[in-house]
Amino acid sequence: MPELVFPLDSTKKFTDQQVTGHNRWHPDIPAAVTVKKGDEFRVHCREWFDGDIKNDDSAEDILNAPMSKVHPLAGPIAVEGVKAGDLLIVDILDVGPIPQEDSGPLAGQGWGYTGIFARTNGGSFLVDQFPDAYKAVWDFSGEKATSRHVPGVEFTGITHPGLMGTAPSPELLGKWNTREAALIATDPDRLPPLALPPEPTNAVLGTLTGDAFDRVAAEAARTAPPRENGGNMDIKNLTRGSRVFFPVFVDGGHLSVGDLHFSQGDGEITFCGAIEMGGFLDLRVDVIPGGMETYGVSEHPIFMPGNTPPQYSEWLSFSGTSVTLQGEQRYLDSQLAYQRACLHAINYLTKFGYSPEQAFLLLGAAPIEGRFSGVVDIPNSCATVYLPTAIFDFPIVPTAAGPVRIDPGIGAPHAASG
Amino acid sequence: MPELVFPLDSTKKFTDQQVTGHNRWHPDIPAAVTVKKGDEFRVHCREWFDGDIKNDDSAEDILNAPMSKVHPLAGPIAVEGVKAGDLLIVDILDVGPIPQEDSGPLAGQGWGYTGIFARTNGGSFLVDQFPDAYKAVWDFSGEKATSRHVPGVEFTGITHPGLMGTAPSPELLGKWNTREAALIATDPDRLPPLALPPEPTNAVLGTLTGDAFDRVAAEAARTAPPRENGGNMDIKNLTRGSRVFFPVFVDGGHLSVGDLHFSQGDGEITFCGAIEMGGFLDLRVDVIPGGMETYGVSEHPIFMPGNTPPQYSEWLSFSGTSVTLQGEQRYLDSQLAYQRACLHAINYLTKFGYSPEQAFLLLGAAPIEGRFSGVVDIPNSCATVYLPTAIFDFPIVPTAAGPVRIDPGIGAPHAASG
Amino acid sequence: MPELVFPLDSTKKFTDQQVTGHNRWHPDIPAAVTVKKGDEFRVHCREWFDGDIKNDDSAEDILNAPMSKVHPLAGPIAVEGVKAGDLLIVDILDVGPIPQEDSGPLAGQGWGYTGIFARTNGGSFLVDQFPDAYKAVWDFSGEKATSRHVPGVEFTGITHPGLMGTAPSPELLGKWNTREAALIATDPDRLPPLALPPEPTNAVLGTLTGDAFDRVAAEAARTAPPRENGGNMDIKNLTRGSRVFFPVFVDGGHLSVGDLHFSQGDGEITFCGAIEMGGFLDLRVDVIPGGMETYGVSEHPIFMPGNTPPQYSEWLSFSGTSVTLQGEQRYLDSQLAYQRACLHAINYLTKFGYSPEQAFLLLGAAPIEGRFSGVVDIPNSCATVYLPTAIFDFPIVPTAAGPVRIDPGIGAPHAASG
Amino acid sequence: MPELVFPLDSTKKFTDQQVTGHNRWHPDIPAAVTVKKGDEFRVHCREWFDGDIKNDDSAEDILNAPMSKVHPLAGPIAVEGVKAGDLLIVDILDVGPIPQEDSGPLAGQGWGYTGIFARTNGGSFLVDQFPDAYKAVWDFSGEKATSRHVPGVEFTGITHPGLMGTAPSPELLGKWNTREAALIATDPDRLPPLALPPEPTNAVLGTLTGDAFDRVAAEAARTAPPRENGGNMDIKNLTRGSRVFFPVFVDGGHLSVGDLHFSQGDGEITFCGAIEMGGFLDLRVDVIPGGMETYGVSEHPIFMPGNTPPQYSEWLSFSGTSVTLQGEQRYLDSQLAYQRACLHAINYLTKFGYSPEQAFLLLGAAPIEGRFSGVVDIPNSCATVYLPTAIFDFPIVPTAAGPVRIDPGIGAPHAASG
Repeated sequence: MPELVFPLDSTKKFTDQQVTGHNRWHPDIPAAVTVKKGDEFRVHCREWFDGDIKNDDSAEDILNAPMSKVHPLAGPIAVEGVKAGDLLIVDILDVGPIPQEDSGPLAGQGWGYTGIFARTNGGSFLVDQFPDAYKAVWDFSGEKATSRHVPGVEFTGITHPGLMGTAPSPELLGKWNTREAALIATDPDRLPPLALPPEPTNAVLGTLTGDAFDRVAAEAARTAPPRENGGNMDIKNLTRGSRVFFPVFVDGGHLSVGDLHFSQGDGEITFCGAIEMGGFLDLRVDVIPGGMETYGVSEHPIFMPGNTPPQYSEWLSFSGTSVTLQGEQRYLDSQLAYQRACLHAINYLTKFGYSPEQAFLLLGAAPIEGRFSGVVDIPNSCATVYLPTAIFDFPIVPTAAGPVRIDPGIGAPHAASG
Repeated sequence: MPELVFPLDSTKKFTDQQVTGHNRWHPDIPAAVTVKKGDEFRVHCREWFDGDIKNDDSAEDILNAPMSKVHPLAGPIAVEGVKAGDLLIVDILDVGPIPQEDSGPLAGQGWGYTGIFARTNGGSFLVDQFPDAYKAVWDFSGEKATSRHVPGVEFTGITHPGLMGTAPSPELLGKWNTREAALIATDPDRLPPLALPPEPTNAVLGTLTGDAFDRVAAEAARTAPPRENGGNMDIKNLTRGSRVFFPVFVDGGHLSVGDLHFSQGDGEITFCGAIEMGGFLDLRVDVIPGGMETYGVSEHPIFMPGNTPPQYSEWLSFSGTSVTLQGEQRYLDSQLAYQRACLHAINYLTKFGYSPEQAFLLLGAAPIEGRFSGVVDIPNSCATVYLPTAIFDFPIVPTAAGPVRIDPGIGAPHAASG
Repeated sequence: MPELVFPLDSTKKFTDQQVTGHNRWHPDIPAAVTVKKGDEFRVHCREWFDGDIKNDDSAEDILNAPMSKVHPLAGPIAVEGVKAGDLLIVDILDVGPIPQEDSGPLAGQGWGYTGIFARTNGGSFLVDQFPDAYKAVWDFSGEKATSRHVPGVEFTGITHPGLMGTAPSPELLGKWNTREAALIATDPDRLPPLALPPEPTNAVLGTLTGDAFDRVAAEAARTAPPRENGGNMDIKNLTRGSRVFFPVFVDGGHLSVGDLHFSQGDGEITFCGAIEMGGFLDLRVDVIPGGMETYGVSEHPIFMPGNTPPQYSEWLSFSGTSVTLQGEQRYLDSQLAYQRACLHAINYLTKFGYSPEQAFLLLGAAPIEGRFSGVVDIPNSCATVYLPTAIFDFPIVPTAAGPVRIDPGIGAPHAASG
Repeated sequence: MPELVFPLDSTKKFTDQQVTGHNRWHPDIPAAVTVKKGDEFRVHCREWFDGDIKNDDSAEDILNAPMSKVHPLAGPIAVEGVKAGDLLIVDILDVGPIPQEDSGPLAGQGWGYTGIFARTNGGSFLVDQFPDAYKAVWDFSGEKATSRHVPGVEFTGITHPGLMGTAPSPELLGKWNTREAALIATDPDRLPPLALPPEPTNAVLGTLTGDAFDRVAAEAARTAPPRENGGNMDIKNLTRGSRVFFPVFVDGGHLSVGDLHFSQGDGEITFCGAIEMGGFLDLRVDVIPGGMETYGVSEHPIFMPGNTPPQYSEWLSFSGTSVTLQGEQRYLDSQLAYQRACLHAINYLTKFGYSPEQAFLLLGAAPIEGRFSGVVDIPNSCATVYLPTAIFDFPIVPTAAGPVRIDPGIGAPHAASG
């Protein structure tokens, strides 16, 4: 078994642990641990709200989730001998929820959650249709998940880290801050905001203290978006067996990981759309010296997904194009086309008895696939979303007999944003 | 074998055939053939430029491809007893290139082509990086394709119709024309254009003649984009074994099909990105009366893909986010993120000896997958493109030894747009 | 398209064709056609009883099927420059039923058949339980098959040649005749027989005539079994996209092919268990000089299956061990264990309304998988048979509610062996 | 997390644990634990030789492995309310090696082993070709295994219990003992033996003591073979996500499990052919009352495999028929045909530098597939064995360039049987 280099105690807050991680990107955050090329090691990961979300039937915790605390990351992990310009090879040997514990109050202890974020707290992919906060709690049985808030489905999780990245160089960090500030400046009061600027409140920066802490907290980039270093890519197939090649921007690489998901649909469309959990990650690292130049990978990791995701042979697919719900024609906008495809799927599922929120939560959490089908046929992009039919315990395909109606149960907990 | 209801003679132009199809959408185009529910039937399909593209080493034909002639469609096919408001079930029993012929001059006769369209003639997904016209000719061996213009790869085609749709109602057609005209009006001289307005030149409208022809030609929608009726969806997995459920807007359904592809990557990114060909399509039709209301499918077909696409177990994936090449931050723009992911893949492939154009043509034609990975992590969408490693006849994965260099051969034919 | 080198006219008997094939193995049968390394070519194949089996509701034709006429083979195909000791590479580019024809009376013209052979005419894998003859006719719709004789199922065919082989050398032929005669001699009157000796009646030997014909007919091996040259291997996954490496025993290789199947279960358990049909085969040939020694392939072809078989993600599996139905313990007998597994599956299917014969015919024809699960746990081998659940149009998995009962329809035609 | 109902301490022998399991089949062995329908629970499993096999470079432990001690089983697990005649549903929620421990001396603690058993100690599938004992130790990295004794390969384990079964009724036990004794009597001194009779030495029978122990030890069936109750089926795809339906012969069902494998090839051909390990199993149980009669499952479990085995798209396959190595023709003997297919594969692999023993050990441990291809083509059965090409880190497919030669390293430890 790999050595545990970044341990967490499930009963303590992220800031009270034996080793302190971080929740911002900055080149000056000191390495928390150091490993060697070829090492296999385990890190524990905290769920992304550090335990603030409860296994209950209320969505108030989602409504008030503290965005400035995310993401508690394991790392930085320095790799001896790695230099800027190298490609850092990271093999995901294993990834899973918190092992060997009875049911507990921390997400990952036998359960996880999905949330639709309210417009006032980040919003979601479909914020105009779903302005309020909702939650679904999912129970784990082996590799499978079910939910009392979304009955009628059971699916195998494609467990993965939502966030993996190397530390940015000072130049890269500067580039991020400049371009994101410029975007925010175009509509600074927008709700939800266009981007998240550096935020010292709730910053956790490893062992930094004093002036160094204050300086870095003021400069450090938030972890919400994916960027050139990887980061919060939320790629649902980065599961066990995957190999990732990260560009290295600072000596040592300074790899950090977190935001574990038990399962996720392509897009993670409810924002907190995956089944969020704490857990562990077993990694092995290696290096291709000078690999960024050799392979032309100057930014954005490349990867090979594992070969053990669940197999489904029957899918029901919905398409959408880049026309708004109000009928306005947009030009080749795949983001919009995927929204429309997802809305079509949600509308379809309501015919079987689900509330729109249940359907939305399901699309965020289940292993649906989202595809760029056509991106050139002016003026319409065509996007498609694929639902594996086997995850439903009732027939989901159209027939002349019409849809069966399920009992939607207690529904998804709701909290209005006031 | 299914009855041949829409025959084509490969030696004659689309307008000189026994039965004339159409290349515009309009409710008043008369049905070319009528079938019954439950019928299995075959239609022949013309390649999308009606034979104007040649099996040669020049790209002048791509540069000058007559956009106003596309797409020559088989249909409209009326289905007896089908009413507006129904869901029309279409089973794709089989689809393939022109059978039983020796090599010939028509795309589909043992070969097909992919083109990068020039900025002056439609442009492509990456028009700013690739403003000129390029072509690749692909030879078919059974289900596999190879190209003298893109050496080093061989892949199994996921043969499919790029375009399938039902006729619009007058109201729906009106909606299309209004919203697309509004878009065009925002930048009427843009190159490439934002959308394509009705165009009587080269319109083919079945048996219509005289005043009726003129009226319909002036109103009828172009076939380039996918819309509420399906249309040019370019979904690469709509292959044999697929079942599609189309909304029906006019009595009889008036199904039309065309734009056959031997293979395509998700997105069809070079515009003429698939391997274009003529061929045949075997269909079976059925109906769910009132299905649009029953299942909430008021627009955009839903479908179940077939279960015989080629299986690949190893993929190399590239990611991109919604930052422009110039470094500007855009807000959750998946179209841009997919462009960046594709550019990363193209750049990577050049390290093995391909020209950028060869790599671009390959991504359009090979069965690559394009995914919406994250669409909510403000401000960056994350898109990913997956290349099946087995299509390359050399090792394509990063190693410490560095990339092998292939002989790029004669390269992709090029025609500057002057 | 590949050149047609071995044409057949569907309206004529195998012996009345333009080019005459053969139905016995012998080194002295002259090559019917000659091709070059790298050539792509098409051959037509006759169904294995040369048209004697009808598309009707009687099994008399199965009862009286003329075993001495099988298998009408396309070939021998000589490959220029190939020498004994080489490995002959054969790529299966495509394979399918008779194309471009309306429904016709010859198996392959839109339909095929499966037969349970009677004890008096070859018998089957389960001859003690099924001593009589039965038949099922299957109709083709694109890649899928259904049967009026086995309702409630539809499946995608994994189309393949049951028989492919190179000509034996005189020494190899002698070895076959000696060892098979020795086996027959142990119980010469057994019904069904232990093996089939050379049989001049109904022998077809290409262009041979006169004394040469008589000598060869007396010596030539029957085509029923697979042997060192390949032959009637009945491997259901040798479908399009497969590459086979054949040992070469005579100069030129002398490849012959036939016994096309629209679909087959592992084992082809009803003897005539696949869905038998005539059709075509597109091949490409190449060579590894001296490959038999280089790779240690001195006998029996090796192969790489294609990557487009239908995918199924849910299977129901039955196991069996090497104990006879009468309760006798046998020692590690996988043949018996597979019989018991198949009988368990048949018994299970009868609970849903099928007759035992319908279930048996289904297992022979559908893409079931048969596995050697344990072959060492003395005294019991364990064999398993996997049924893809998606081929049934009703739920086939055990539940507390018990099995649904289907209407078995007209059942499988039956002919008692008198 | 499921409740741990059958704990094991890795540092203690099977007979010194808190709860004692058993290693014989008998209806009178008392239940070790009782669970309820719907319960999810964890059991620990001991590796099949209770720790006697070491992580070293000697095969003496394999040569002298104490066959009378196998298999240490977790159970019997009684399920409340289950009656004879029911079908017991067992969901395999998860299965894996010993978690949360550093490397240790017990198989399952980060490593496992495969052994070829000597003729004098059980023998193997190919005992005539491999009469001596050999061993390979495999190291685990996440879901993958590698071996210093078989270099050049790495594969994802399809972790599974080799043995799962319900307790026999007295009548069923009697039938086993009678029929196996009859077989042994046909050749009582055979080496390896034809079957294993009851053996009191080393019998472990849960809480039984005194006369009851002596009586049961004298009658109880050995656990080596699979039988009507399931037992040592060694089905490599009974991995996580599988659902098994067991016939119930005694009230309570009395389920027992053990013989965990990290990976196995179809057939487990080296006898101790899987990668043997200790570990854990998470199960959920339910029942179909009266299901044996309702579904006709009076013996032998049926099952649905999970959907997360590793996917491979390229395979190299070898065939064999029922002719002995000495050239004797046997009648439709699939056991022999599979031996010949495996020998062909072994011979092929030696051309790349492996010793025959290394190749044999690999076929036992890697996820190869063994198929019944043809079982009716008198006189030859055709069996096929499929090797996934991606498990080799060098090219394994035949080419004109000939095989690469690997460094076979230290080879497989060997112990002659003297």
